Formats: sequence, C-alpha cells, structure tokens
Amino acid sequence: MTPYEIIAAKRDGKELSAQAIANFFDGYLAGRIADYQMSALLMAVCIRGLNAAELNAWTSRMLASGEVLDLNFLDRPRVDKHSTGGVGDKVSIPLAPLAAACGLAVPMMSGRGLGHSGGTLDKLESIPGFSTQMTIPRMKKQLERLGVVMIGQSKTIAPADKRLYALRDVTGTVESIPLISASIMSKKLAEGLNALVLDVKYGSGAFMKTLADARRLARTMVEIGKGAGVKTAALLTAMEQPLGAWVGNALEVKESIGILRGEVENAVTELVIEQGAHMLVLGGVARKLEDGRASIRNAIHNGAGLEMFRRLVEAQGGDSRVADQPELLPAAKRQAAVLAPRAGVVQAMDATSIGWAAVDMGAGRKRQEDHIDPAAGLEVHAHIGGRVKKGQPLFTMHVNHAPGRDDAIVQRLLSAVRIGPEDAAPPELFAGIVR
Amino acid sequence: MTPYEIIAAKRDGKELSAQAIANFFDGYLAGRIADYQMSALLMAVCIRGLNAAELNAWTSRMLASGEVLDLNFLDRPRVDKHSTGGVGDKVSIPLAPLAAACGLAVPMMSGRGLGHSGGTLDKLESIPGFSTQMTIPRMKKQLERLGVVMIGQSKTIAPADKRLYALRDVTGTVESIPLISASIMSKKLAEGLNALVLDVKYGSGAFMKTLADARRLARTMVEIGKGAGVKTAALLTAMEQPLGAWVGNALEVKESIGILRGEVENAVTELVIEQGAHMLVLGGVARKLEDGRASIRNAIHNGAGLEMFRRLVEAQGGDSRVADQPELLPAAKRQAAVLAPRAGVVQAMDATSIGWAAVDMGAGRKRQEDHIDPAAGLEVHAHIGGRVKKGQPLFTMHVNHAPGRDDAIVQRLLSAVRIGPEDAAPPELFAGIVR
Repeated sequence: MTPYEIIAAKRDGKELSAQAIANFFDGYLAGRIADYQMSALLMAVCIRGLNAAELNAWTSRMLASGEVLDLNFLDRPRVDKHSTGGVGDKVSIPLAPLAAACGLAVPMMSGRGLGHSGGTLDKLESIPGFSTQMTIPRMKKQLERLGVVMIGQSKTIAPADKRLYALRDVTGTVESIPLISASIMSKKLAEGLNALVLDVKYGSGAFMKTLADARRLARTMVEIGKGAGVKTAALLTAMEQPLGAWVGNALEVKESIGILRGEVENAVTELVIEQGAHMLVLGGVARKLEDGRASIRNAIHNGAGLEMFRRLVEAQGGDSRVADQPELLPAAKRQAAVLAPRAGVVQAMDATSIGWAAVDMGAGRKRQEDHIDPAAGLEVHAHIGGRVKKGQPLFTMHVNHAPGRDDAIVQRLLSAVRIGPEDAAPPELFAGIVR
Repeated sequence: MTPYEIIAAKRDGKELSAQAIANFFDGYLAGRIADYQMSALLMAVCIRGLNAAELNAWTSRMLASGEVLDLNFLDRPRVDKHSTGGVGDKVSIPLAPLAAACGLAVPMMSGRGLGHSGGTLDKLESIPGFSTQMTIPRMKKQLERLGVVMIGQSKTIAPADKRLYALRDVTGTVESIPLISASIMSKKLAEGLNALVLDVKYGSGAFMKTLADARRLARTMVEIGKGAGVKTAALLTAMEQPLGAWVGNALEVKESIGILRGEVENAVTELVIEQGAHMLVLGGVARKLEDGRASIRNAIHNGAGLEMFRRLVEAQGGDSRVADQPELLPAAKRQAAVLAPRAGVVQAMDATSIGWAAVDMGAGRKRQEDHIDPAAGLEVHAHIGGRVKKGQPLFTMHVNHAPGRDDAIVQRLLSAVRIGPEDAAPPELFAGIVR
C-alpha cells in the first residue's frame, strides 16, 4: 500500500494492517513521509479510531523508534506506575521509594508539568541538588543497588512520540483516546517492565472530564499493556478537587515527605497505599491487595519508605537532609490568604482553574520553555463537602511575586470554588478498576 | 478561534463559521498556517463534510485567493459548461463555438488531461499552432469580438486550489464531494459567469462510479453555484463506455469537426445539443429547452458553428484549415486492429481501462510532467448492446510506438470489453438533471 492508500483506508474507517502501520511509521521517521501526510493520518485516526490490533502495532512502532530498556538482569520484579495527571498529584514521590522498600524495582521515567497539571520532575528538582538526568548505564546501576530511580525520559526513548506530539499539538489531534494511550504506553513500555499500574483520573481537574471517558482511556491503555506482555491494571480515581492539601513543587515534596513520615493522612495517602498495593500484587511480591496495602502501610510506619527516599535523593545528587528538615526546601517570601466570601458548604471545585492559578503564581508552565518558581504554590484549606465560615481562608498562596499581581489570581481561585447552603458529599476517590 | 480550535471543531463534526473558514484560508495562503495543519483540516472535512453555508464560504475564499474576471462589459450572457470528465468526452470543442454562434459569450477555461481522462487543452493543442495561453486583456478582447475563448486557467485564477490540490493529492483527501465541488466551482466562478451547465458523469469511466454519488456531487456543485448567484444546472450522464467513436487528442478534434460539419451523429452530438440547449435557456437566449435544441441543431446545419470554430482557431493562432481538411491534424504512423476474441453482444465496457490504454499509447499522462503524443489514440468500434462477430475489430489503435509495445495494450483493451451471448441494452445517456 502507498502512503496515500494507507491514509485513505483509515479515512474510510478500514482496519490498517500491522505492516501498513509499520511502513507508514518507518517512512515518516526516515523522512519519506511528510508531516502533512502524518497529520492527515492522525486526523483520520482521531475520528475513526484504532482497534486493539492496530493500537498494538502503532504503539510497538513508537516504541521501536527508540531504545527499549533491558532490565532482565535485575532480580526483582520491575513495576512502575503512571498517572494521567491532575492538580496536586504528588503520589509518585512517596510511592516509588515505598514500592522499592517493599521489594520492587521501580524504573520511573516521568515528564515535566505543562498547563494546569504539574510534573514529577519539576517537583523533585525543587530538592536542592536533585538531578533527574542520568545515563542508562548509571540508571541501571542505581536500580540494581537501590531498586528505584526517578528520572526524565532520555531522548533515546520513543523519539517518535516526541515528534508526533509536537505535530498533534498544532493539528487538532491531541484529543484522541487511542493516540493518548499509544503516547503514554510507548514511553512506559520502553522501561522494560513486568507490570504497570495506571491511575486514570476523571473530573474537573483531569484531562478526561467524565468517568466514561476515563474508563475508555483506561481500557485502551490496559489493552495495549497486555498486548505487549506487561501485566497492567488501571485505577479510576476522582480529580474533582486538588489532591491533598498542597499544590506547587517544593510544597508538594514537603507533603510527600509528610506522608513518608506518617504525619500526613489524606487522599494522597489513600492513593499511595492503593496504587502501591496493586504494584506489589502485580509484581508478585504480595498475594492479595490487603497484603499489599499492609506492606505499604508498614513501610510508612517503620520508616523504610522514608529511608529509601533519603537514599534516592542522595543517589541523585540531592540534599537528603530534606527528609528530616523539609524547611531546607525553597520557600516563598510571602503568604497571602484567600478568604471565603460567604458561609456555606463547598459544593464543587474547578480543579483545572486552581491549577492555572498555580501556573499564574509561577508554579507551572504555559509554554514548554517557561521557567518555574519551585517555591510558589498554594495550600488548599477547602474541600468538597467541607463547611466554611465567611472570611475563613480557602487557600493560602505562597508567592514571590509583587502583591499587585495577587488580585487576578485571587479572582481565579474564588471563581473556582462554589459555596452553597446545601450539604454536599465529598466525591468518592475510587471509582473502579480496569484490568 | 485559533487554527487548533478550527481544526478540532471540524474534527468533532461542528459547523465552521464563514469567519473561521476565511481566517484559516487567509492564514494558510499567508504562510501562518502550515501544510500539516491544512491537511488535518482537509481530512476532517473529508470525513465530516461541509454544509451549504460552509461550502459557500470555503469556495468563496478559494475564489478570493486569485483574480475574478469582470466581464460585465460584454453585452451577451456569459455562460460556460464543465464536464467532470470521462473517456472520449470532447463535447466542449464543438459546443463552445456552437453556443457562441447562438448568441452566448463562452469564456471557457479548461484543464489538461491526467490519468485515464483527457483534457480539452491537450486536444485543442493538437491543432497546429493553436495556443491555449492568453493574457486576460486579450481574452476579453477576443470574447467581445468572437464570443468565445478556449484557454487554460491562468495562474492568477484560484491559486489556492492549485496548492490545495497538490496537498490533497498526497494526503488521502482527494475523494471528497465537498472538496471536489469547491475545487471545480472556484475555478468556474472565477470566469465571472451568469450561468453554468455542468455535465456530471457516472459509470465505469467516470470519477463517480454510481449515479447516487454523481447526484450528490451535482447537487453540491449546483448549490455552490446558486449560492454565488450564478444560474447553475447539472445534467447527470452515463460514462459506461467511451463517449463517441474516438479517444485521443487529434482524433477527438477530428470527431468534433465532424459534428460541427453535421457529418457525425452520435452520443457526443446528443450531449452537445442537450448541454447547448441548457446553456441557451439559462443564458436567456432561448425560452424553452426545445427552442435551445433547435438553435444548436440549426447552428450545425447552417454551418454557423463550424464558422465560429474556424474563427476561434484562427484567433488563437491555429491552422483554421483543419475545419475543412482534418487530415492536416497530426496522424499516427501506424494502425493496428484489436479483434473480438469471440462472437456475441457487448455486455459492458470498462471505460477507465480503455482510457488507461490510451495513456499507454501516449495519448495521456500518468504524471503531470509527462509529454503526450497528439496523434495517438484509438477508434472505438464496439459499443454496449452491439453485436460482434469473432475476429471483427473492436478497436483500431493509432500509434507511433514500436509494435513490440502493442501486446500489453491489446490485453488491456480486450479485458475492458465483456462479450456474452445475451442481448444487452445500451445505457441511457441521460439520467436526470439537478437544478
């Protein structure tokens, strides 16, 4: 089939053979197929979709465009987790060391924040000295020695995804469950995993606004994982309000340390325990979920997770004293409270707007090339279902900018919280599992 | 709306405003919107379609990308015709001078042949000296003096169509009724017409294989024409076998001259009379179709059409003696008959294959840059429903190539004719009218 015939077949809703997909990808990466041909195919895929066989072929070509880690030399099960992203989601930071402390090897490669949603790399880099760049040989040594690395994707991992994403970003082809799934999974499968736990979020702060869409995304990713021979499960969890009490890079590391120290017990802790339990079961080091939950709780209470975090920070060049003295993390010069304009119960929150308010404070990026302020962010005092008095703080902003810029941010934050007279139930954190 | 939002809206099946279409086109032509963004939008249009309002906006932007003729200075109604193309369709050549002889101004801009279907320009250029290139001022003068020009589209006419077509040709976005319609109509509307008659063909030799598709194309084009204030009608006609008795450039000019001389009476003649009648009625110089038909027939029988053809050829630098001595047209060195392999009745013909056989002989182009042999082509002796004896000629090839190349062409021609024992009815030439 010629490139034209491949594009036209997908346009007409036909199934593409694995060979056709491979030829198209190889032609694109070799420069024989132009961006304008790939964007036409991407649009056809957005509208017509890809079935399971097509998706496996598509993902495997993305994967094959770069390096795939061979971690078979490790004697522990290789298990990672991935969240589709939200506001205040710092689960990876306590979870990776906890899972390693429980006997898994966690070769975690993460991304940076863009838009309303933060990124694990940016958070970790708020720890003085912490480096998220590492050669593959060094990464393998650290994995062997510690059982955990937390680094950025090297340029050699799924480079096709980078090119494809840049193209999708300007051609109206971002919003496609098969393309999103292939993009995420190609990067995760490059880690050479035995198992993968996905946290697929839905709600006001998630990319998937509805549970139904989140479930479709979860099913698609789980199918790809299984098709590639990796045990994969996806938790469906709510992102209707910021996760936990803090949003912002150093602030989220501080909250993560609180969880590892057993001092913070909130929705983040629940997610850490639940995702950790699934990682341990899929990795084969726990027989049942209840055993897995107990192992994670135990690694919190006996300090094994905190110790692993300390060693991880040290191994990656960071100041490991932050594990015991979080005040060594960068702190903002100024705090300002955002007060409830009326009394009542918090009915709903627009977590995406709150994420954008954090971006306005300097905690995130509007464009990929933007710099971030590691100290900036906010404490979230209000949660859905909570009763507030008039004048009580809903948020505390931690900022380095001049007070003149506060007003617009305060307005954004206030308009993101709906306060009403009726009682409101907090959203259920867990909405299901796909495996 | 940003380019991304415009593309995504069409991807999701939403209607685009005239403003959004204008902004996208203007951005594309100015280089602010890239080919890969346009190809994504084109694919979305292929799958989601365009409604009447969108199509008018789309076509008017294509039109506005170049020059639109102002022919209001003419005192005659400006009427043109356009055929969607087929094998042996030389109707324009006798029709344009006949319509001019009946009182219309015919500012006909045509294209070249590509693939199995021939082009009016190539046919005309087989007349020694005939030029199809002309400046707009000279074209206007000739129109005023003669009432007819037959030239190529100048580069200043709808240049966006040229760019868009080149992109569609490599991105799987050719097969789209709205895009085909906008492409054809933007070029025709640039002629500054009062009325337009379309000949929309269906069948084995047409781009639209079914009458239903041809009807959709006809409706879409008529809608665009009316939306632009041009009286438009479309005849639906059969292209199940080569039209008339000859395929090839000089050979089709010869057949056209035969029609103008009243010496040839076949399906081409029928189409000339019917399309001519519609042109005269839409142009307001005939009250009823029957009057229009009579006028065209009359212009054949009194020689007015032939005289107009003579003057047209002369005005465009050609040897007008061909009107009386068609033997002055280029002739091939060699003729070879293709004989019926068995006796029976011609059940069906694959006109597209016959068109490609003519391309193989040199009468057409595989690629835009190919040269053509004006003398090459074939006479078609067999038509659907006709009875043939074994060994009787089905075709006579007129060729300049070496006999060694005949075999493959003969095979192609023979496989394009199905002969069976049963009687078969000739296809009805006229299948309807859309207005």
